[in-house]
Amino acid sequence: MLRYAPPLERVIQEFERLPGIGPKSAQRLALHLMKMDPQDVQSLGEAVLDLRREIRECRVCFNYSLGDLCPICEDPTRDTSAISVVEQPSDLMAIERSGEYRGLYHILGGVLSPLHGVGHEDLHIDELIARVEAMGSGEVILATSPTVEGDATAEYLRSMLDGLDVTITRIALGLPVGSDLDYADQVTVARALRGRRPMGE
Amino acid sequence: MLRYAPPLERVIQEFERLPGIGPKSAQRLALHLMKMDPQDVQSLGEAVLDLRREIRECRVCFNYSLGDLCPICEDPTRDTSAISVVEQPSDLMAIERSGEYRGLYHILGGVLSPLHGVGHEDLHIDELIARVEAMGSGEVILATSPTVEGDATAEYLRSMLDGLDVTITRIALGLPVGSDLDYADQVTVARALRGRRPMGE
Repeated sequence: MLRYAPPLERVIQEFERLPGIGPKSAQRLALHLMKMDPQDVQSLGEAVLDLRREIRECRVCFNYSLGDLCPICEDPTRDTSAISVVEQPSDLMAIERSGEYRGLYHILGGVLSPLHGVGHEDLHIDELIARVEAMGSGEVILATSPTVEGDATAEYLRSMLDGLDVTITRIALGLPVGSDLDYADQVTVARALRGRRPMGE
Repeated sequence: MLRYAPPLERVIQEFERLPGIGPKSAQRLALHLMKMDPQDVQSLGEAVLDLRREIRECRVCFNYSLGDLCPICEDPTRDTSAISVVEQPSDLMAIERSGEYRGLYHILGGVLSPLHGVGHEDLHIDELIARVEAMGSGEVILATSPTVEGDATAEYLRSMLDGLDVTITRIALGLPVGSDLDYADQVTVARALRGRRPMGE
């Protein structure tokens, strides 16, 4: 079968490797690049090339960072007596967007998953323990996802932090705001009931 | 609002400018790049940068090409007595995939569109006329899309090529193979009726 010129086929193949982009979308995107202002295409290519050269992990919390410390760890107005433990930088962003939290973070880099061969040493768990030990007192909020693996990871972290002088909490599970009880899955309803709190608290 | 480190935000913004990619997808793609093998990310960035540097338009038919001539214009086995006029290189690929055609192509680069300010001089129309004049005899297949603008462009090209010693044809309009008459729109059914041909032809 006839194919596009090799540089174009190469871009199509590279796009196809990205998540959620099938052969048709990859072709559409690549053909769009052929019609864009060459300056803009160059800008896209350079942004991609610069990405991994310029971004590193924050020395303290492993958030994506330009410098040695990420903007949150560097911010003197943050509450240093609380650490939210999350799986990924995108989870940190979700909590930041909520506007509910002024403490620090710790990016685990994933969840424990024996099935996928992810163990203690593959996550930033030792660094978390060291941080919490150094912190002395305060709160560690385990904010891994409410999945089987996220729950198991939170449970594991709780056991690892046991004995240290911090309060360990888990983010609340329940009905999403604005959702319909009738349409919620039974596990969520069960968790929402179990987590019920006195009114006016 | 807190944002990701600037190089990451930059990639997100670049992705957002692509068609069919919203803010959420752009973020998902950019975060995926952070988890990919850095070699693969570099390969993607370089493919994008090389694209517009390496691909040019075929001197004869304006198809995307690595060299002066595209693989089709260069191919000595193609039938040089037929030229299919299409809007874009992707239309050429669609015809090639059908396996029905062994002639040459001419990429217009779009359709006439007074509304979008696309006129005669914005398309490769003069080059088409010169090619057809040089060809002497043969067939010009007007294969612009069966849209209002595609039809109008085909009609315009027919009038421009009038008087030259070539047969001018338009690709057939009708029911798509495997489709259901019952579900076809009325314009398509009308065209299919108007285009009816004797059985066994």
